[in-house]
Amino acid sequence: MELLNTDTLEEAQRKLLEESKDLKLRTEVAELSGALGRICARDVAAGENIPPFSRSTVDGYAVRAEDTYGAGEAGPAFFSVAGSVGIEEQACVRSGPQTAVRVQTGSMIPEGATAVLMSEYAEEYAPGKLAAYRPVSEGENLMQTGEDLRQGDQVLRRGRRLTPADVGILAGLGIPSVEVWSLPAVTVISTGNELAGIDEPLSGGKIRDMNSYVLAADARRMGMQVRRTLRCRDDETEIRSAAAGALADSDIILLSGGSSKGQKDYTKQVFEALSHRVFTHGIALKPGKPTILAYERESRTILAGLPGHPMAAALVFQLLIGAWYRERTGAQKMLPYPAVLTENVSSNQGRETCLLVELLPGGEETGHRYRAVPVRAKSGSLSALSRAVGYVRIPRAREGMRRGEQVWVEVLE
Amino acid sequence: MELLNTDTLEEAQRKLLEESKDLKLRTEVAELSGALGRICARDVAAGENIPPFSRSTVDGYAVRAEDTYGAGEAGPAFFSVAGSVGIEEQACVRSGPQTAVRVQTGSMIPEGATAVLMSEYAEEYAPGKLAAYRPVSEGENLMQTGEDLRQGDQVLRRGRRLTPADVGILAGLGIPSVEVWSLPAVTVISTGNELAGIDEPLSGGKIRDMNSYVLAADARRMGMQVRRTLRCRDDETEIRSAAAGALADSDIILLSGGSSKGQKDYTKQVFEALSHRVFTHGIALKPGKPTILAYERESRTILAGLPGHPMAAALVFQLLIGAWYRERTGAQKMLPYPAVLTENVSSNQGRETCLLVELLPGGEETGHRYRAVPVRAKSGSLSALSRAVGYVRIPRAREGMRRGEQVWVEVLE
Repeated sequence: MELLNTDTLEEAQRKLLEESKDLKLRTEVAELSGALGRICARDVAAGENIPPFSRSTVDGYAVRAEDTYGAGEAGPAFFSVAGSVGIEEQACVRSGPQTAVRVQTGSMIPEGATAVLMSEYAEEYAPGKLAAYRPVSEGENLMQTGEDLRQGDQVLRRGRRLTPADVGILAGLGIPSVEVWSLPAVTVISTGNELAGIDEPLSGGKIRDMNSYVLAADARRMGMQVRRTLRCRDDETEIRSAAAGALADSDIILLSGGSSKGQKDYTKQVFEALSHRVFTHGIALKPGKPTILAYERESRTILAGLPGHPMAAALVFQLLIGAWYRERTGAQKMLPYPAVLTENVSSNQGRETCLLVELLPGGEETGHRYRAVPVRAKSGSLSALSRAVGYVRIPRAREGMRRGEQVWVEVLE
Repeated sequence: MELLNTDTLEEAQRKLLEESKDLKLRTEVAELSGALGRICARDVAAGENIPPFSRSTVDGYAVRAEDTYGAGEAGPAFFSVAGSVGIEEQACVRSGPQTAVRVQTGSMIPEGATAVLMSEYAEEYAPGKLAAYRPVSEGENLMQTGEDLRQGDQVLRRGRRLTPADVGILAGLGIPSVEVWSLPAVTVISTGNELAGIDEPLSGGKIRDMNSYVLAADARRMGMQVRRTLRCRDDETEIRSAAAGALADSDIILLSGGSSKGQKDYTKQVFEALSHRVFTHGIALKPGKPTILAYERESRTILAGLPGHPMAAALVFQLLIGAWYRERTGAQKMLPYPAVLTENVSSNQGRETCLLVELLPGGEETGHRYRAVPVRAKSGSLSALSRAVGYVRIPRAREGMRRGEQVWVEVLE
């Protein structure tokens, strides 16, 4: 495979977005109980205030703050108690000068009051008579109308992966369901005569199929649904028929193995036969060079030919399909970790390198960043991927990175 | 609530573990297709080698490395071709001195060969005659038996949250299922006369119930299953009956609201009636002081009374129930982010403070760490929790932290 004909990772990412732009991601309505972790498909604004009225955050007395100024243990401020507002009650009393209203945590603050004095610092020394032993400042111990969220505030942005707090906010606003991106449907096909199923005895030159498991799990973790996983022999007809059969119900077909330029590498022929348009054949990326991308316009299906080595396949899935999915849904990547590289690493100039690393705690000597320890591994090695927390991208123009260099470690997600 | 009678967070965490030590977490067997994200309950060792035999990682010729030393474009090394090993074939030929064997990516390496020369650097210039235009070093372009994983290697540790790579490794080892922790069963009860359901119109002093949604989502995110969510009025009988009914099928009951010492705070009475043993009442933590912990020995159920403010309830859930669950399963927390605080913050001495922060990119001026921007919010505010990436723990002994101070930001998970 000629380097001259390969794409950079950025080129491949851009082509994938451009070529598949008519692949329409569907949306669906998720009930709150099933919304956690789903990706929001549309901005959501608050239709109500949270809280809907000023509420006390303690048990105590609603007062005008200025009437307490100067109050202390020795010289309390005095109030007359005008009544009570229980929780869930409409506040019907008013708080005026030197007038206190009994409130509970969550009670509506009566009109006129600007703060709440905690019970601990107050004493009803006679019926209807209150002494305040502490001053309170305006707004103290209460939550103003709309202080958490104001009507019209943007609550969720498109692309937001819903957290427990988001679900709680929607509940607080009386929004029982939310529009989220439907899970894209993925078919995973592993190819190779050498592949044995998980329950077959190994014999001769057979190894077990790992890719269909890794890629299916990767797709699930990214928030996709796996329609099926298949295993094919290195047979063009068999592979084509498997891929063709998946077009109708899959947004993405991941075909691993057979993407190099060897005798038995049929991915390119199959993709050309199915789509008439292979737009990327080879990426200047290590690991991950033998990657083939095509798009079938009729069924609107992305065809991704991934390396046969499972670690490389998983990384390319993250870097290409993951980037595509985030761009299309607006979802954010997890924040990378700042770290200091613990050893020199070399890389091929002209090819971007994805260096797997573990993260170890670093102290003063790393400026309170992590130590990024490269996980040495050939591209077939899944145990390296399993050990790694993430990866460092070494740019194409570099020949490597030095021990002690500052790096950002992208999280494997 | 007297500070003298409150526990520190560490004391509360320790007591919770100690008191509930006979709560037996169950395990179950998960098929690989459903194992992603589950927490491994037992160490797993490799019963086979991956790969099970030495394999070529390229298409080319298996040779003895030393026979290629000194080979170049101008002066190739010469070999006779002894045959081929296709993928999935047992290698029957032997590689001897100056003898090359044709291999494909994934072929078994024949005995005697120590490296593979890529096809690109080789030429069969006459039948059975090969010229090598590049030297290869020992081990180049092949993966040794067991190089990814050796029989007996530890593959997974108890507590590991299974990643796609882990699933792939298990598949590669022919292990079709794995013992994982069963999801603890949780009942969530929100209390408060002021609480309205999500579809009720708001009137008077009513607000919508958020806690049951937040806490149910928090429990799900932590890998628990939610048996039911209930809403109770501030009525001791009603609350006791709801909690009592959940004992039989719940490992944990989360009861939010009613944990302060006000008139209508029945959590303590209910827990005492059900368990005869409340071991923590109040934590020196901000937010999160009104937290009550008990353990019911007969049904082996943790009773956790959480603050009524949703943000505080969610944080206490993370800090107490989350810590308990990780300790019991061996699961790891996500790595914290190193950051620099962007402003001075004060905290109560004697109480640990949990400061919510957003993370913004930092450059040279922060030593390539993040900038941790405090999210100002009262403890009722869920929007603050939603905006925050994580929190900084300010120790009890401190009165605050200074702008520019190095902090570690724990991720909300």
